[in-house]
Amino acid sequence: MTESTGGTVDPDGPLAFEDPEYREAVVDLLGAIAYGEISAFERLAEDARLAPTLEDKVAIVTMATAEFAHVAPLRERLESLGADPFAAMAPFRSAIDLFHAHTAPSDWFEGLIKAYVGDGMANDFYREIAAYLDAETRDLVVATLEDGGHSRFVVDRVRAAIVADHRLGGRLALWGRRLMGEALTQAQRVAAERDALSALLAGGVDRPGLDLAAIGRMFARITERHAERMAELGLDS
Amino acid sequence: MTESTGGTVDPDGPLAFEDPEYREAVVDLLGAIAYGEISAFERLAEDARLAPTLEDKVAIVTMATAEFAHVAPLRERLESLGADPFAAMAPFRSAIDLFHAHTAPSDWFEGLIKAYVGDGMANDFYREIAAYLDAETRDLVVATLEDGGHSRFVVDRVRAAIVADHRLGGRLALWGRRLMGEALTQAQRVAAERDALSALLAGGVDRPGLDLAAIGRMFARITERHAERMAELGLDS
Repeated sequence: MTESTGGTVDPDGPLAFEDPEYREAVVDLLGAIAYGEISAFERLAEDARLAPTLEDKVAIVTMATAEFAHVAPLRERLESLGADPFAAMAPFRSAIDLFHAHTAPSDWFEGLIKAYVGDGMANDFYREIAAYLDAETRDLVVATLEDGGHSRFVVDRVRAAIVADHRLGGRLALWGRRLMGEALTQAQRVAAERDALSALLAGGVDRPGLDLAAIGRMFARITERHAERMAELGLDS
Repeated sequence: MTESTGGTVDPDGPLAFEDPEYREAVVDLLGAIAYGEISAFERLAEDARLAPTLEDKVAIVTMATAEFAHVAPLRERLESLGADPFAAMAPFRSAIDLFHAHTAPSDWFEGLIKAYVGDGMANDFYREIAAYLDAETRDLVVATLEDGGHSRFVVDRVRAAIVADHRLGGRLALWGRRLMGEALTQAQRVAAERDALSALLAGGVDRPGLDLAAIGRMFARITERHAERMAELGLDS
């Protein structure tokens, strides 16, 4: 409720929302995350049809419904900010749909890797961005990142399949690189189109931000964690 | 824990499970419900692609995930009865898959009606059968029947569409009859194949059951409630 020293707005207080650009950036971010979760749900539910057994199908659908469960609190938060949740999602539909159209899995294992690695990349990005948010929004964003350990089964399934078929490992490693490349392409597209969201990262008069070097380091961290996840699956990155 | 008068087994006590035929019937029932929920989820998630707006899509997916949320407690209960949940589901996959294959919606409204009316019929049947179960199984079955009011939106959407297009009402009324017919066909098939499950309804030496006239009255009640649901949607049955 009070301004911090130096005349900057307290990023943890409601005052943050008195900056219309900050509010716009948060509406953008929550809209992007919400549509990302809906879209992730849809693709996982579709990929579930490729499951070799009913048990595998139930496991992937459990991951899908866990993603979808995040949508309701994001909608509520958008509404409490006076935004129409579906209008807030609209600007991100094209980039997210394109990401999925360009990375449609051709089999069950590509679907599993996409679920694990794609979700991981998105979560890393949101975790990075969460540092620039007020406390309430940050808590909400961080809560959407918890997967409840459902994706453990992906690691088990992929590792077992690679042991059984070494050529599969090479193909899936390439697939992981393609997912990363496509995600960066679409993220850059969003950054170029959504000024408020980019400004959130770049900082503003009242808020600390990232210079170009810091943004570079952020992407280096995200790429590094992608490599760690690929290694966890037993794949080169 | 005690036998009731007349030498019959207390249907509310663990002793009910000392009758192997009763246990087999409960495993069948929970397996059928679990696969029904998984399958309902799959079809709703697929029908969601026909949604005219993102908001409608989110509404139908919310119904789908509510169905799927029932699967985990059903699995746990099957495991606590010493049954393999997926083996318990297996005998019902063909009938339930056939029901869906024969009632694939050709548009968004047929999908909505199917979600509402199909789910309603299944729930009525489970509610009828619940009367013949021990208390713990009954509570679990009844809990799977709660839809949390999500389907209210189906009634609103269908009524509004019929007002706008009267011919749609005639087509959807026919569709409702077809759903009911196909559900009865598959239910009879299951009853013919699964002796323990049929015996649960018919009763046994130790348990009260239904004679043919009572089974007829049960189906009359289910048909009547189907007609009520169709009327609620603004459709003739």
